Amino acid sequence: MPRVVVDVMLKPEILDPQGQAVANALPRLGVNDVASVRIGRRIEIEFTGEPDLDRAREIADKLLANPVIEDFTVRVVEADDTADARS
Amino acid sequence: MPRVVVDVMLKPEILDPQGQAVANALPRLGVNDVASVRIGRRIEIEFTGEPDLDRAREIADKLLANPVIEDFTVRVVEADDTADARS
Repeated sequence: MPRVVVDVMLKPEILDPQGQAVANALPRLGVNDVASVRIGRRIEIEFTGEPDLDRAREIADKLLANPVIEDFTVRVVEADDTADARS
Repeated sequence: MPRVVVDVMLKPEILDPQGQAVANALPRLGVNDVASVRIGRRIEIEFTGEPDLDRAREIADKLLANPVIEDFTVRVVEADDTADARS
């Protein structure tokens, strides 16, 4: 069943303290080749019928993202392309 | 600059109250064709050199995901495929 995936990330000019905290923790794990980490949200929307990108965009704009500080993208993915797949 | 994107989602069998709250709010917006909403995290990792998938997988496993309740996937994306692009 295809789903719509909404990716919400802070705008590039907005500081991301959560991502910074992860980046700062990496040297303690022995990882020294990471320049930056940004943390956002991934929302998977399953429709009862056909996936509806325009509808998903409306939901993202009204309910999922804060357009003042966040950007979002919407796209349709096949079910086996989701993070549900064991990795 | 290519980045590694880590998508972290709750395992399908784990309840997602945050996603449920969004799904329950949708009828009030006039949206009645959504079957389910699941909310996870999207992490963008920028390396100083070449993007390193194995390294990213290690970071995700140790620092970004809780393997008891979450699944994750790692993949390389080109810079213009990120949610940073205005939408």
